Amino acid sequence: MTSLPSLLDKLNGFAADSPFPDAPPGLYEPCDYLLALGGKRLRPALLLMAYELFRDDVAQALPAAWAVELFHNFTLMHDDIMDAAPLRRGHPTVHTRWNVSTGILSGDVMLIYAYRHLLGVGNDATARALVGVFNRVAIGVCEGQQMDVNFETRNDVSLPEYVRMIELKTAVLLGGALEMGALAAGASAEDAGHLYEFGRLAGISFQIQDDLLDTYGDPAKFGKQVGGDILQNKKTFLVLKTLETAPPAEQQELRQWMSSSAEAPGKVEAVRALFDRNQIPAQVAEAQNYYREAAFRHLDAVQVPESRKAVLRASVEELLVRQF
Amino acid sequence: MTSLPSLLDKLNGFAADSPFPDAPPGLYEPCDYLLALGGKRLRPALLLMAYELFRDDVAQALPAAWAVELFHNFTLMHDDIMDAAPLRRGHPTVHTRWNVSTGILSGDVMLIYAYRHLLGVGNDATARALVGVFNRVAIGVCEGQQMDVNFETRNDVSLPEYVRMIELKTAVLLGGALEMGALAAGASAEDAGHLYEFGRLAGISFQIQDDLLDTYGDPAKFGKQVGGDILQNKKTFLVLKTLETAPPAEQQELRQWMSSSAEAPGKVEAVRALFDRNQIPAQVAEAQNYYREAAFRHLDAVQVPESRKAVLRASVEELLVRQF
Repeated sequence: MTSLPSLLDKLNGFAADSPFPDAPPGLYEPCDYLLALGGKRLRPALLLMAYELFRDDVAQALPAAWAVELFHNFTLMHDDIMDAAPLRRGHPTVHTRWNVSTGILSGDVMLIYAYRHLLGVGNDATARALVGVFNRVAIGVCEGQQMDVNFETRNDVSLPEYVRMIELKTAVLLGGALEMGALAAGASAEDAGHLYEFGRLAGISFQIQDDLLDTYGDPAKFGKQVGGDILQNKKTFLVLKTLETAPPAEQQELRQWMSSSAEAPGKVEAVRALFDRNQIPAQVAEAQNYYREAAFRHLDAVQVPESRKAVLRASVEELLVRQF
Repeated sequence: MTSLPSLLDKLNGFAADSPFPDAPPGLYEPCDYLLALGGKRLRPALLLMAYELFRDDVAQALPAAWAVELFHNFTLMHDDIMDAAPLRRGHPTVHTRWNVSTGILSGDVMLIYAYRHLLGVGNDATARALVGVFNRVAIGVCEGQQMDVNFETRNDVSLPEYVRMIELKTAVLLGGALEMGALAAGASAEDAGHLYEFGRLAGISFQIQDDLLDTYGDPAKFGKQVGGDILQNKKTFLVLKTLETAPPAEQQELRQWMSSSAEAPGKVEAVRALFDRNQIPAQVAEAQNYYREAAFRHLDAVQVPESRKAVLRASVEELLVRQF
């Protein structure tokens, strides 16, 4: 079994050996630019770790792993346009540094290159299966993004709808990466299914944790501005939980804050206090734990020796530790 | 062999039996909207006609044919954003009727559905081969679009560069559709290669013809405003031919017209007269003929009885007849 840093080294080596063409530069430079901004390479790492549950020749899975990373960056490039985001990882987004047309077209070609790399894995049956999973996941991600867009202008979003949105927008890709790693390694359909569920449920848990951290995280550890969700009136798990469980007067106060601007004095502190006195953080943490525990039950069920699961288990556990 | 109208009936039947999901409607309604605006369905028809050169069970190729049409519509949806086009086939473009974000995301999901349908054809080896051709073609189309964007702000575009741009932006998809039809039918690599070249060269001829028609077409037959390219200062084959072959004073006059606005009085007539006195239409028609004849030599070389080629030959001949 290979350590996570070694897996990422192999991935970076594959990426360096598989560059985009030089021309036309206006098409490919934005792809290189976004990829060079970094990121944890979580999705390809999951794919490689899943592959290593079953086989030792992990180099065979690198094209599929890189395909998943390209897909993720394609979604970032297009989502940043839709969100009118000026910055990504502290640098100008592609459509800001170039323009919207560039962000659209370079994103498109990055998606197509993901499919191209995917065909570089395994025999014909494996390649077909991988493209099939990839299609299913990619369609889910688009549907999740559409739901997220719709939520911005709706005032009646329910918690189950919210969970479905984060499941599609984020979690199915984590599950799909694990499933593809298993399929590339020739795992049984049952084990591949357990790994998909492991990633899907862990992804939901991760997103709920992300909502908690945005309001309660340690500013020194959390990459973004703490309280950003509150300032932007985002319908997070905390907000929806409050609107579902808190007394009517408390709901009313929260709705008032959410119709105020980011400049309203004391907004973050007031909303945080409202969450606190209604025991929202504990309820949200409970939901996070529920999905995390459900996730690991699926990892437990995968039919390989426990020793082979060590790297994957430790990596996902670290991801889902509450960094408060 | 099946007539072209019957092939299109089968295609429409397949499309009706393979609708997009109902939800989220904000994602899929724009796809249905654009597809319902019509179009000749040229690319899927080419794929089906190529399949029928080799086999009689054309229903097997319908998913790949529909995939090619979805891909084409994906490019229209995104190109219309990049071109800031208000109308498509006389109706509001998707980003005009909805918004840019919708045009991006619905286009993305249409591309992914193209890949999904592609997997519905043949055995594993065939499906993998089809996805491979599709990737190659799709990357070419993106590169061609980028070149087209670059040309808008360049004043030194050469004729070979222009031909390369229309080849990538338009012609490789026609060639790819024919090649995919052949591969789906289990044709030899040699025959599939000839069909790709047939489509590629016919596509270049078609685009050169389109440039001619835009300036010299019969307004009653030509779908768009005759002279539109001149009014928009587009660097067409006629313009580039003039800048390559006409005397310096004529080139200078053309450059002056091309830096004038669409409102400059008598612009279309003056530029047309300039083309005429420099024998540009005849030279451009010669180039169109060159590519058309080269194309049909590849159709001639395909190793099936001539009788099987009748529908494909007649359809492409009709497409490349000068409609002056």
